[in-house]
Amino acid sequence: MTVRLGLLGAGRIGKVHGGAIAATPGATLVAVADAFPDAARALADRHGAEVRDVDAIMASPDIDAVLITTPTDVHATMIEQAARAGKAIFCEKPVDLDAGRVRGCLKVVAETGAKLMVGFNRRFDPNFMAVKAEIEAGAIGDVEMVSITSRDPAPPPVDYIARSGGLFRDMTIHDFDMARWLLGEEPATVYAAASNLVDPAIGKAGDVDSASVILTTRSGRIAQISNSRRATYGYDQRIEVHGSKGLASAENVRLTTLEVANEAGYRRAPLLDFFMTRYTAAYANEIAAFLKALAGDAPISPTGDDGLKALLIADAAVESVRTGAVVRLA
Amino acid sequence: MTVRLGLLGAGRIGKVHGGAIAATPGATLVAVADAFPDAARALADRHGAEVRDVDAIMASPDIDAVLITTPTDVHATMIEQAARAGKAIFCEKPVDLDAGRVRGCLKVVAETGAKLMVGFNRRFDPNFMAVKAEIEAGAIGDVEMVSITSRDPAPPPVDYIARSGGLFRDMTIHDFDMARWLLGEEPATVYAAASNLVDPAIGKAGDVDSASVILTTRSGRIAQISNSRRATYGYDQRIEVHGSKGLASAENVRLTTLEVANEAGYRRAPLLDFFMTRYTAAYANEIAAFLKALAGDAPISPTGDDGLKALLIADAAVESVRTGAVVRLA
Amino acid sequence: MTVRLGLLGAGRIGKVHGGAIAATPGATLVAVADAFPDAARALADRHGAEVRDVDAIMASPDIDAVLITTPTDVHATMIEQAARAGKAIFCEKPVDLDAGRVRGCLKVVAETGAKLMVGFNRRFDPNFMAVKAEIEAGAIGDVEMVSITSRDPAPPPVDYIARSGGLFRDMTIHDFDMARWLLGEEPATVYAAASNLVDPAIGKAGDVDSASVILTTRSGRIAQISNSRRATYGYDQRIEVHGSKGLASAENVRLTTLEVANEAGYRRAPLLDFFMTRYTAAYANEIAAFLKALAGDAPISPTGDDGLKALLIADAAVESVRTGAVVRLA
Amino acid sequence: MTVRLGLLGAGRIGKVHGGAIAATPGATLVAVADAFPDAARALADRHGAEVRDVDAIMASPDIDAVLITTPTDVHATMIEQAARAGKAIFCEKPVDLDAGRVRGCLKVVAETGAKLMVGFNRRFDPNFMAVKAEIEAGAIGDVEMVSITSRDPAPPPVDYIARSGGLFRDMTIHDFDMARWLLGEEPATVYAAASNLVDPAIGKAGDVDSASVILTTRSGRIAQISNSRRATYGYDQRIEVHGSKGLASAENVRLTTLEVANEAGYRRAPLLDFFMTRYTAAYANEIAAFLKALAGDAPISPTGDDGLKALLIADAAVESVRTGAVVRLA
Repeated sequence: MTVRLGLLGAGRIGKVHGGAIAATPGATLVAVADAFPDAARALADRHGAEVRDVDAIMASPDIDAVLITTPTDVHATMIEQAARAGKAIFCEKPVDLDAGRVRGCLKVVAETGAKLMVGFNRRFDPNFMAVKAEIEAGAIGDVEMVSITSRDPAPPPVDYIARSGGLFRDMTIHDFDMARWLLGEEPATVYAAASNLVDPAIGKAGDVDSASVILTTRSGRIAQISNSRRATYGYDQRIEVHGSKGLASAENVRLTTLEVANEAGYRRAPLLDFFMTRYTAAYANEIAAFLKALAGDAPISPTGDDGLKALLIADAAVESVRTGAVVRLA
Repeated sequence: MTVRLGLLGAGRIGKVHGGAIAATPGATLVAVADAFPDAARALADRHGAEVRDVDAIMASPDIDAVLITTPTDVHATMIEQAARAGKAIFCEKPVDLDAGRVRGCLKVVAETGAKLMVGFNRRFDPNFMAVKAEIEAGAIGDVEMVSITSRDPAPPPVDYIARSGGLFRDMTIHDFDMARWLLGEEPATVYAAASNLVDPAIGKAGDVDSASVILTTRSGRIAQISNSRRATYGYDQRIEVHGSKGLASAENVRLTTLEVANEAGYRRAPLLDFFMTRYTAAYANEIAAFLKALAGDAPISPTGDDGLKALLIADAAVESVRTGAVVRLA
Repeated sequence: MTVRLGLLGAGRIGKVHGGAIAATPGATLVAVADAFPDAARALADRHGAEVRDVDAIMASPDIDAVLITTPTDVHATMIEQAARAGKAIFCEKPVDLDAGRVRGCLKVVAETGAKLMVGFNRRFDPNFMAVKAEIEAGAIGDVEMVSITSRDPAPPPVDYIARSGGLFRDMTIHDFDMARWLLGEEPATVYAAASNLVDPAIGKAGDVDSASVILTTRSGRIAQISNSRRATYGYDQRIEVHGSKGLASAENVRLTTLEVANEAGYRRAPLLDFFMTRYTAAYANEIAAFLKALAGDAPISPTGDDGLKALLIADAAVESVRTGAVVRLA
Repeated sequence: MTVRLGLLGAGRIGKVHGGAIAATPGATLVAVADAFPDAARALADRHGAEVRDVDAIMASPDIDAVLITTPTDVHATMIEQAARAGKAIFCEKPVDLDAGRVRGCLKVVAETGAKLMVGFNRRFDPNFMAVKAEIEAGAIGDVEMVSITSRDPAPPPVDYIARSGGLFRDMTIHDFDMARWLLGEEPATVYAAASNLVDPAIGKAGDVDSASVILTTRSGRIAQISNSRRATYGYDQRIEVHGSKGLASAENVRLTTLEVANEAGYRRAPLLDFFMTRYTAAYANEIAAFLKALAGDAPISPTGDDGLKALLIADAAVESVRTGAVVRLA
């Protein structure tokens, strides 16, 4: 059985997911919608799909599922609309920047029984999946401490930062999801230390650009996260899980395997420096997982609830920075 | 201007190149031919192309260039046919296993003025390209010694070995091309030591499976190559160039960046173990280079002559093993 | 001019320092004292020194400086005694486990004008020194974030833990000193999360064995420390400093450079698993630095004040774990 | 029982071995001889030994064994003298640069029943020992191919080269011994390609400075060696053994574990660049092994015959370069 899809949003990520669908047997891209008609047209043409508007896609009987890759502010509304229209839903993170709004949206999803997957792409990175697989295979025993290093090559434009929800809701939220996934237990406390070290303009926009976070769980597991909006050497994305029997880690991904040696030492290539190339496989894998879940072969994961929980941790981190105190999660 | 292509051979590599063309703006796959009609049909359908037979493709005025990805034994004939038909030609290595036949074919290419690129894909591997770029930028000074390690994960079926031309013409030929490319000078002598250590069946088929080769150039540069038909840890593909000012190398490519540590030490992931995944980027890059050369932006490289020269080194290596002596190249 | 030394304590570290003195031109080990006469005798004989008791060493006119390598509880008293006797002093960390007692001791040192160096050996590890040198050379720009991973191979005996002052005063104190040294600025806040995950007996002894700490400075620099009393893969001792222009790090030290590859992947050797082999060079370097400072070529560093400051951070970490709150340093 | 030793030669290596003896319980350095009386005196004083001349040492009833660390040209004579005097003998490689002379010397050793160990220090490097241990433990199955990279940081003075016996007898001889040790089978053929690329003065002195060698054994095992007299990045000393079940390798040893990352990539420290620091542990281990063998706990290894066999391979390599042909060993 073929899954027939509608794509809402023909931007950067929309193109990636559109291509993933086109390359997947058992999936067909039926229609594309975008506020910019030319973008919708170009993407639709590329994959032999039609251009339809959002309402038309929601109403289309020949569409089983939608991928929401629009700007964040309409995610929740589109999810609700699609849920009510009986579509399965893949939505890029976050559902919304406001936890109350997310809760309302998830209520609609629950009432309609809609299937909703939230796009925390890093869970599908082959390197991080390999770490998770080792944990599940018992290779490192009980998980005790998780360390996540997550640094962007360069900060986004300041006007994006202003409407991004801030470092914790925009960037660290991925790390909060990773921490939950790797800890295997919900965080109970959050402490975040944060500074404006990279660019004063970020501080003027009301945000921080450098942060360190500690999460603890009820059983005493600890996660620490180190963030920066700037890393001169590329996109620094590492995880490390210390367990009772050993350590599992995923190192960074380099541009090439080149090494040049001379008097000054051995120089290896810098890291991939763009999230779309760094996570190319992850994006493909998450769409494949969504399609597989729709085929009934696997449960939906990560869910809307995963999205909400990561956001609540982000909110707690914001609160922690504001008050300089440790925040306990409900 | 769009380059219109015909694909001769819809097998493993044909599919890779067909996909590369489909993904390239400015190139169109017009027709596919294959001895197995179903294979041709499946590939043609996938990319919106037609199925035509070889003669039809050669005669098609709506086809500018052909990609020859058939079995080796018809390469030379197809090159000649395409050259006479005025098509530009990309042909998988080797042009032929017989040097005399290659010379005859290249004569036709020269007479017709056809453009011919031979598919030594490794020149287009991003890691090896990075090494070459460092050499050209002067980072290691004058090239003195080249070391190539090239080991397959597992030997091919014995019946393939029997008609492959043997280790040197089938597998080491890639390393001979790499050596020429990295040395920046033609080899003048060849010494090859070879054994049958991996599987006695390979020896019975008249071939060797383990080899070490030394090439020297007139100015005293030296290349050494280490080959095996079996490497339990994956597809071992490394190069290292020692120069007057330093060393440039390209390490292997791993499945993931996973590392697991415990009492036994630190375990990293094994290597990619299949040439098509290991050289995915190289295959895409070489087709891009072919299309770029057709657009007139760059000379054709590697050429038919590059194919001939690598084959002559392979022939000398065979002779060296047969006689146990060093062979001087003409 | 030769520096004539008395060694107070002929245990494990006493032997290391005694050997370092013996190997240093310009230094002579004159006398050794130890509560166990046989230990003193063996070490004295080995290096051609005499056995004297502590009071005799303090009173010896032929001794310029003392090395205090006794158990912690007599450090402060011996420092005071030596200071009053006009000796230069090298004392293993800590001066005392009680900050008030340290302050009293340092007052005596100040009043007598004695030279006092405290043995934070890690500042003299060649790998960490190389990181510090890169920072000072400007290679990574302004320091922004320091990450320290510090895990022992296995916990000490529980009865040692009971009198050790606990994880933060015994083990993390080294990391607090490293953090101060690398941050280049005093920490202003301390948050420590800690658990008893390794061995319930440690918890019963009133201590924790797993911890994560965040320090922040007034200008917004951040340090994070990850500790465990057990690492199956050896003695995990890494530092990483993220700056405005790059990242400087020191990796772990392995038993050998062995790597074995097969189907399961690439296995490297585990880490050195004993602090005395891991920090062999550091111990030699710190004694050399002490002797050099006595010769007037360099200021004493780290000082008694460095010892006090690290202890105050440790006290704050203990308080943070007790209250679950962030602690501000005076 | 204590082994009482005489040291013949108080130069660079003599000092290293003298220190090793002094640090070994169960061994005593009784006397030192050197053509330079001051050198002998300084070393003797340092370790509480006497200065005696060579004849006196040979005649001393209080000396059980001698360590020969003189210039090469008197090695064989001293070995014979010591053998006749009933001393056990450790001699730095080579026994002599002339195979006939070595044979004569070993005949005396055999007739007298003297114990003779030849100082191929690399067999005692912990990294290479770890590779050997993995082979012996069966971790890589049957040995098939050995690859040795051996490059000096910089060429020795040209006047040393002139009397060194040339690249193969002076430098590669270590690699020939390693190859024999790792192959586990005697080489049957030798092919050497060599050039003068590093410094024309070396060529004028009649030697080469860059070489690649292939050894083959009767059963088909293959070793390849890559040499250069100059490596800008340090002392390049690597081995790699490819077997039926996997690959064992020993990587280079770096000055520190520093890594600095920025836009240009990741820069690690260069290699140790001096044979005495690179092989510090190896020198200590080989003396320990000699003393252990004298104590009867282990056979002597490597023996005089090992020294001869490595020299015969070196002679064959010289012949191979001279004739441009493969040389078969007797």
